[in-house]
Amino acid sequence: MTRPIFMLTDFGTADTYVGIVKAVILSIAPDAPIVDLTHEIPPQDVRAGAFALLTAAPYLPENAVVLAVVDPGVGTNRLPIAVQVGGRTFVGPDNGLLSWAVGDAAAANVVVLDRPEFWLPSVSATFHGRDIFGAVAAQLARGVPLADMATPVEAVVRLLYPMPKVTRAAPGRIVRAEGTVIHVDRYGNLISNLRQDDLPLNPWVTIGHEQIVGIAPNYQADGVGRLIALIGSAGLLEIARPNGSAADYLGIGIGATLTVSAESLLPPTDS
Amino acid sequence: MTRPIFMLTDFGTADTYVGIVKAVILSIAPDAPIVDLTHEIPPQDVRAGAFALLTAAPYLPENAVVLAVVDPGVGTNRLPIAVQVGGRTFVGPDNGLLSWAVGDAAAANVVVLDRPEFWLPSVSATFHGRDIFGAVAAQLARGVPLADMATPVEAVVRLLYPMPKVTRAAPGRIVRAEGTVIHVDRYGNLISNLRQDDLPLNPWVTIGHEQIVGIAPNYQADGVGRLIALIGSAGLLEIARPNGSAADYLGIGIGATLTVSAESLLPPTDS
Amino acid sequence: MTRPIFMLTDFGTADTYVGIVKAVILSIAPDAPIVDLTHEIPPQDVRAGAFALLTAAPYLPENAVVLAVVDPGVGTNRLPIAVQVGGRTFVGPDNGLLSWAVGDAAAANVVVLDRPEFWLPSVSATFHGRDIFGAVAAQLARGVPLADMATPVEAVVRLLYPMPKVTRAAPGRIVRAEGTVIHVDRYGNLISNLRQDDLPLNPWVTIGHEQIVGIAPNYQADGVGRLIALIGSAGLLEIARPNGSAADYLGIGIGATLTVSAESLLPPTDS
Repeated sequence: MTRPIFMLTDFGTADTYVGIVKAVILSIAPDAPIVDLTHEIPPQDVRAGAFALLTAAPYLPENAVVLAVVDPGVGTNRLPIAVQVGGRTFVGPDNGLLSWAVGDAAAANVVVLDRPEFWLPSVSATFHGRDIFGAVAAQLARGVPLADMATPVEAVVRLLYPMPKVTRAAPGRIVRAEGTVIHVDRYGNLISNLRQDDLPLNPWVTIGHEQIVGIAPNYQADGVGRLIALIGSAGLLEIARPNGSAADYLGIGIGATLTVSAESLLPPTDS
Repeated sequence: MTRPIFMLTDFGTADTYVGIVKAVILSIAPDAPIVDLTHEIPPQDVRAGAFALLTAAPYLPENAVVLAVVDPGVGTNRLPIAVQVGGRTFVGPDNGLLSWAVGDAAAANVVVLDRPEFWLPSVSATFHGRDIFGAVAAQLARGVPLADMATPVEAVVRLLYPMPKVTRAAPGRIVRAEGTVIHVDRYGNLISNLRQDDLPLNPWVTIGHEQIVGIAPNYQADGVGRLIALIGSAGLLEIARPNGSAADYLGIGIGATLTVSAESLLPPTDS
Repeated sequence: MTRPIFMLTDFGTADTYVGIVKAVILSIAPDAPIVDLTHEIPPQDVRAGAFALLTAAPYLPENAVVLAVVDPGVGTNRLPIAVQVGGRTFVGPDNGLLSWAVGDAAAANVVVLDRPEFWLPSVSATFHGRDIFGAVAAQLARGVPLADMATPVEAVVRLLYPMPKVTRAAPGRIVRAEGTVIHVDRYGNLISNLRQDDLPLNPWVTIGHEQIVGIAPNYQADGVGRLIALIGSAGLLEIARPNGSAADYLGIGIGATLTVSAESLLPPTDS
């Protein structure tokens, strides 16, 4: 059966770049289902692309082909690579874009795409998503083995993941965690790099000039207009504002820090 | 044959939320065609979602599965429901989102989705589009009967449709109709809740500070730059500006009123 | 086998117009793959649509059906047409939208869509994308011959392509080329109507108040922050700014002129 192809790019949808890649794919693999993960990664923002891919990866079908292109170095000597993780194949430039989604275990299964006979006959210096990555993804979709199109490679570019800073008073007893906002979604939810396991038992979350007590069970937990902290759908701590935008309310975005502690960081008041 | 799934959400396309739901669907129903109705419903605007669904519903294939998620109450006690209308199945939250599209006749065919064995193994409090609705839509697409996944329910949330106010001088003789702008489309066309049947025979349309005489046959009827009124593709009276935006020109939008009368509402002039 | 349908419109994706056309298509041709080329052609900008179609056309599958709708004259006496080019069929309004993509050779293969029995039963005056073009594209996808649905026509509307002005000192020796920016893409790249063949051997490119020496091999060729000129993925000369936007940097857009000469147009400096 034809494998489905999941695309993630910074191409946007106003130009025909995405459509052209899909035209190439269907010319090679006419039955391939093609799904858009997103094409609105900010232009050339490899880290934003890596994070988006990380959130989607756990839900991909077992036989998915992932075609990921955020590629400011297109046409230079950065390599075109693919990474095999279980039944899934990730295809893209060797600039770290794939590195968070494929995880550590995959280090041994990285290959360089080095067989031009599987690419488009003419390869431009500016659009490998069309000429190399799209063509190879389509070949994979229709059943060509990855090994036929590539050569194993050892060293690849990996992006450093922004690890939170967790302070423990004793083993298992977290007293403080410092994290960073790594994504702001359409609703204005501020998504951090902190997981449930990074948090103290009774967390106080400080972000901007605000402090939030406890973790809410859902977006409506504390009424309209107040900030809440909750564990979002990717398993990450996020700050939300019911029926509003936390990002707009706080006036902060990607890169902002948030601190979670086992007790209030605000001075006590008389109220 | 696998049923097609039509998605309508407020997820936007910059995040991977839509792509993740599609990944879940194709993991369960690999052959399901998936069509985007739109993902740009304004965040949490259930009424805008209900209207969009209403305009699309008449054109859906007879066997369509509709997956509609505008869901500010996700994770609270609002129920996940499905509505069967002929061969079509609408899946979404019980907040009125589906209520205009499914019509009155469907009241008897509403079910609550209450069989977690058809959902993803782990259900988050923030993303039922992925964990419940997407999974159930995929099960429907591959042929699982709705009855296996749900239990009939009687009362569901219905949104009040904004009915126009129509004044008749005698049975069948309309002298005045008052309506509301319920949607502004990409072209800046102001789409109202008035139908052809609500209008006087020789209508004068008043909106903002402008009056339009008669109903135009198409968008080019009255030359560039002048406002026209016409019956749009959803059968609703709309105000348009040939090769321009009526919304920008008038400076008005959703919620604005328009009045259609059997004679001019403007004072006579000397011209 | 069902033919794939490639859509290009100015419908945007916030309304349900695109989704409704796809619903119509799948009602007629349930197996048809549907690919979005783009729906973000600026409203009613037929020339922008024609250019987008031109860039995508070479990559379309041999059996593609192209459904192109940028149609300010919908509902007037402009004709619905189709153009057969090899195995590909282009469907759309007769306003020049298709004319650049189909090329000159196709002049003999233009037909008028004049068999309402292949359209939706009720045809609106405002949405032929749904009622005529979408329906006909779906009929083509499922194998209905174009000749059954149409009648040959001779004269169609053709848009004038903005030809560059090339000055030769002798046959084959270009000394100067004047072009125009005809598209600005998501990255802020300024794409012109000049091809490699239009350029002098050692080109100096002047645009806005800047001059660029030579043609770069890729987007990273000259470091971050400087303007470069290169032949882009559509074979056209474009002005780019590595990791930035040339359009923003220069403050210019579509319609701006650029001049390529065999020697510098700037006065010599002392540096």
